[in-house]
Amino acid sequence: MKAGNRSGFPDLRRFFAPRRVALVGASEDLTKFGARCLKQMLDFGFAGDVFPVNPNRAEVFGRPCFPSLSALPAVPDHVGIVLPARACLGTVAECGRLGVPFATVFSSGFGELGTAESAALQAELVRVARAGGVRLMGPNCNGLINFVDGFALTSTATITGGRRPAGDIGIVGQSGGATQVNVMWRVQEMGLGVSYQVSSGNDADLDLLDYMAFLLEDPHTRVVLALAERFADGARLRALAARAAELEKPVALIKFGRTEAGSRAAASHTGAVTGADAVFDAAARQLGLIRVGDAPELYEVAMLLRQGKRPAGNRAAALAISGGNLVLLTDIAAAQGIAFPDYAPETVEKLRRLIPGFMNVTNPTDMSAGAIGTKDIFGQAARTLLDDPSVDAAMPVVTIAPKDDIRSIAGMAKDSAKPVAILWTGRCADDPALTPQALVAEGVAVYRDALPAALALARTMRWSAFLRRRAAAPPLRRPDGCDPDAARRLLREAGAKPTERASRAVLACYGLHGPTEAVAATPGDAAALAARMPGEVALKILSPDILHKTEAGGVMLGLRGADAVREGAATILANARAHAPAARIEGVLVQEMVAGGQEMLLGMARDATFGPVLTLGFGGIHVEVLRDVTFRLPPISAEEVCEALEELRLAPLLRGVRGAAAADVDALADTVARFSWLLADLGEALEEVDVNPLAVLPRGQGVRVLDALLVPRA
Amino acid sequence: MKAGNRSGFPDLRRFFAPRRVALVGASEDLTKFGARCLKQMLDFGFAGDVFPVNPNRAEVFGRPCFPSLSALPAVPDHVGIVLPARACLGTVAECGRLGVPFATVFSSGFGELGTAESAALQAELVRVARAGGVRLMGPNCNGLINFVDGFALTSTATITGGRRPAGDIGIVGQSGGATQVNVMWRVQEMGLGVSYQVSSGNDADLDLLDYMAFLLEDPHTRVVLALAERFADGARLRALAARAAELEKPVALIKFGRTEAGSRAAASHTGAVTGADAVFDAAARQLGLIRVGDAPELYEVAMLLRQGKRPAGNRAAALAISGGNLVLLTDIAAAQGIAFPDYAPETVEKLRRLIPGFMNVTNPTDMSAGAIGTKDIFGQAARTLLDDPSVDAAMPVVTIAPKDDIRSIAGMAKDSAKPVAILWTGRCADDPALTPQALVAEGVAVYRDALPAALALARTMRWSAFLRRRAAAPPLRRPDGCDPDAARRLLREAGAKPTERASRAVLACYGLHGPTEAVAATPGDAAALAARMPGEVALKILSPDILHKTEAGGVMLGLRGADAVREGAATILANARAHAPAARIEGVLVQEMVAGGQEMLLGMARDATFGPVLTLGFGGIHVEVLRDVTFRLPPISAEEVCEALEELRLAPLLRGVRGAAAADVDALADTVARFSWLLADLGEALEEVDVNPLAVLPRGQGVRVLDALLVPRA
Repeated sequence: MKAGNRSGFPDLRRFFAPRRVALVGASEDLTKFGARCLKQMLDFGFAGDVFPVNPNRAEVFGRPCFPSLSALPAVPDHVGIVLPARACLGTVAECGRLGVPFATVFSSGFGELGTAESAALQAELVRVARAGGVRLMGPNCNGLINFVDGFALTSTATITGGRRPAGDIGIVGQSGGATQVNVMWRVQEMGLGVSYQVSSGNDADLDLLDYMAFLLEDPHTRVVLALAERFADGARLRALAARAAELEKPVALIKFGRTEAGSRAAASHTGAVTGADAVFDAAARQLGLIRVGDAPELYEVAMLLRQGKRPAGNRAAALAISGGNLVLLTDIAAAQGIAFPDYAPETVEKLRRLIPGFMNVTNPTDMSAGAIGTKDIFGQAARTLLDDPSVDAAMPVVTIAPKDDIRSIAGMAKDSAKPVAILWTGRCADDPALTPQALVAEGVAVYRDALPAALALARTMRWSAFLRRRAAAPPLRRPDGCDPDAARRLLREAGAKPTERASRAVLACYGLHGPTEAVAATPGDAAALAARMPGEVALKILSPDILHKTEAGGVMLGLRGADAVREGAATILANARAHAPAARIEGVLVQEMVAGGQEMLLGMARDATFGPVLTLGFGGIHVEVLRDVTFRLPPISAEEVCEALEELRLAPLLRGVRGAAAADVDALADTVARFSWLLADLGEALEEVDVNPLAVLPRGQGVRVLDALLVPRA
Repeated sequence: MKAGNRSGFPDLRRFFAPRRVALVGASEDLTKFGARCLKQMLDFGFAGDVFPVNPNRAEVFGRPCFPSLSALPAVPDHVGIVLPARACLGTVAECGRLGVPFATVFSSGFGELGTAESAALQAELVRVARAGGVRLMGPNCNGLINFVDGFALTSTATITGGRRPAGDIGIVGQSGGATQVNVMWRVQEMGLGVSYQVSSGNDADLDLLDYMAFLLEDPHTRVVLALAERFADGARLRALAARAAELEKPVALIKFGRTEAGSRAAASHTGAVTGADAVFDAAARQLGLIRVGDAPELYEVAMLLRQGKRPAGNRAAALAISGGNLVLLTDIAAAQGIAFPDYAPETVEKLRRLIPGFMNVTNPTDMSAGAIGTKDIFGQAARTLLDDPSVDAAMPVVTIAPKDDIRSIAGMAKDSAKPVAILWTGRCADDPALTPQALVAEGVAVYRDALPAALALARTMRWSAFLRRRAAAPPLRRPDGCDPDAARRLLREAGAKPTERASRAVLACYGLHGPTEAVAATPGDAAALAARMPGEVALKILSPDILHKTEAGGVMLGLRGADAVREGAATILANARAHAPAARIEGVLVQEMVAGGQEMLLGMARDATFGPVLTLGFGGIHVEVLRDVTFRLPPISAEEVCEALEELRLAPLLRGVRGAAAADVDALADTVARFSWLLADLGEALEEVDVNPLAVLPRGQGVRVLDALLVPRA
């Protein structure tokens, strides 16, 4: 096994680009997987040694065939295995004995069957591989394609008919057909090129993240696309996303399991267990992974991302000769969060000089007939608009246009440092060879319809904003006053079912507190303490000998003002002495009464992929009916809390509506950040965490934990 | 002017299929609009008489050219006009003098400029046309294409290169390029055929609805597609939608103006003023208009709709050999509301007989390798699934497959009475001529990606459900006890600024009431009246001589039980007498105190398209922060109210959450239906209507208007 790269992922260079390959289960019968697989490899033009292995044949496709791996003249870097499920184990063991570093098991009949027996067989396969130091792809997979070096180990029909040139899009997925046809083949049909493609099946040993990590580090790959039924390990996904952000290499993905029906389908396909979709969605935003909905959206966003042009904001200029298309595009793009700002006066002036008689220069820019028939004027107009400092990107629209116009706008798109998404809904009027695909192959981003164009640009803008935020953020550090050791000790001491009081004590180790309280020795002290609390206070007699305070006349609620507090304290002290003359009196507890404030909740979701996940939302009836909550992987900074809050529908409540005071969002952000560290530090030891309600008081008054519950994991 | 058809729309048969056509402004210079327009007409093979008109030419394209319309040998049915804006007026007047029924004004320079002068010019154009009995298309338009009879009056480049065969999709839009390129040309590229296409421009006289009405009645057209910047007249749109529902002919449309930016763009394109988008959205649902987001969605849904197969529900069977595609499709389709039910045991049995060894028969159905290589097995499996009574539609998936498999599934789709949406993501492995377009041209619905397939099927299912609901609904009638005459009289009497009391009186004419109240003469009466009210009551002294009841000790709140009410009434009677011995005492008002209940609101929005629109939503903080409201065009039935309620996010509150009692939804539905009649009857006379809050009490206790305001229109 090779040393891992600096992200902690294995080095897969020889996996993707072996010098020698063996295929166990090779044949010439093209109705069989093994024969198709071998033929593809030969047709694809693999330049290294190919060793077919089959004890029943001396020759396959005119090449010598070997009876076993042990009989090969040299040790292969990668062995493909097409055998009945049980027979794979011996072959993988043989790989280990020979020192083969990588094997791909195509065979099905493992974990995807969903039976205990098949799961055990898969576990045994992995055990054998690890014992022999063999890293494994599959089982139940359809292999890989390396367009860079010309190596294919797959049965897919998508690569018949000559090898396509290598490109810069790397594609991975667990599935065969969907990844190879819906994504890879369509990417190529669209005019884009692929660097590597992987259909990884059950991911029993190596998994999607390992292949993605290879693509991230690979210099030929500029965009990574994934079609994921599942990600097994949230921590490694986070590491991968952090590395992608560091390299500024975009990762766009489809994650199955948005719906219950989809999750069930995934489970019966490759045995995938998907986590909660809303959690994954929030995590993808947090980690800068570009999640899309359907396969074409992957290559649509890749068209822009591969150019490496990073929009500085969300402001675009739209321009066209077709007014109707401008209306359609603007309407659709604005709904995706793209703004169409007014141009600077100088820009308007320049455009009027360029197109005489063009009076009404607005954004979107309808150049109408003024721009027809003058060579390169479309591109020049677009250049002028892109030069405007208030414009971050351009969306030119073409319907049916002459070659000159299309070349003009494509040339502008190539030259521009700002991203340009061309919407081309028709065809070239005078050159049938000039197609959207041809322009895409030249490196231009061309879309056939407004929605894909807008989605791709909006996603590129959001990703660019993510990179800016990330660059601007100070390193994440545990806030002062968090004491993980004390919290762990208190949690341990609290036993299996901590009381509310014990739960509060753990929270207090991270600076999460309930209402202010203090002990007064005398009525005068009580008045002085109460004066430091906002609003009304409650007074409670403090005595280890008085269990039922209320019966003893030892509780008074809703007191306000020094006199009332002083008198109240005197009264309950007297009551207590009268009720139980022998009782030891430790004083009077003066407790802030929390009224009003916005009720929110903090909690922890335990996700199949990510483990402990922070839940943040509005409390009360909103939880049940609106489910107005969002999620974050802990820990997060106070700034990230503020971003998360903006995802809540009721967020305006925090700013104050109907004349209500604005809530103390600073204190809330600080508290949630602290809470996120509690989950990061102790989450694995906890089964359940509920801080509900958390009262967020008016600005300057902080937040208060009104109720809390922690349940340790069994 | 021809007589209108039975929907009240004009008869446009001679407009679309004239026997004789003139083009004023004809020339041979193909850089000019008039020349292109004439050439298209000739190339398109128009079989009737073509009269070019231009005083400066004797001949155009080898045909005699006439100096004026008056010089023509016969009166044309339709005259196209390509002249400077001002010059159009005289020509339209000439049309009128000659008895020309239809004219199309292509020229721009009218309302779309947004100036008072250009608006006046457009108004004058319409005045001249109407004075002469000429119906007008445009101005600022790009004409029409009739594929059925072979007539084109347009400059579009989309029809160059030979006339495509006529089909069954009718397409209208105000824009030129977007409607003709993004929709019409792309519809044809997709393998579908078009019956008629209209680019209608400013809609100064005839408008989009007139052309749509023609398409609805036209026997060649099976689906109507519209790309609408605006609909000028909500009442006519409703009439059109009702006729479409009656004919069961689907109308799918894009309506611009979803966003503020889009609305602004539309205004500067054809002077369109869009109504509120949320109102249009709700109205489209109510009227059974299929609203989509982007141009391709129009023909994607048309592919299914044109087949006339009506799914009986929302349950589909998905089947494929590619497991990954099934997961993707199921996930995406389920998010669109499509269900994938379990099959009946007989279906499972049949499938197992068909594919020996196929054990795990679930829906979605992954046939995997079992179905490969056996002729027609894919189609047979799909037939078996479609025969299942719990299945309303099928979604078979093909990636890269041999001709036999594709033919098998296409044949099944053609034969089936249930709709079949084929997802074909790849290509035919052994016949390059067998393409998705080829299948679409044969009448099959084929999609390249999962989302378009799911959207199209889900929309077809929803439209089918709309038709079922409509067929099952009894005729809409004004509920008993609504008194429009009394309401109108009271509104008139209330003056410009009705009091709350006067507003309530108008509402009462439609059966909308506040808390129960009654006048008691004696304390005993008061107790008896209170016994008939749920919960607590308020008592108020009733005297024309006591203005300030509270000061007179004449108000008591929150009384419960016979004794308390009797004593309370006695007390305030005594207080009043003591306070003002000379006052005339009319008795004691016993008033139900409404506590709890769900606060909702009813109101009226005045929409630019539809006029008075009913607003229904949750009250209180929800209005401002959540905007949890929906809209309906009045009047509606109680059943329709229940549908509308389901669109509200907080709807679960009405069913009772956290142990709260379920609300009196029956009473709410009845009340909202009554309120909708008030808007239908009096809406045009009202500027503002606010019933807020409307308290919806627990089941059986009805609803109460707690506050109300009506403002008449100035």
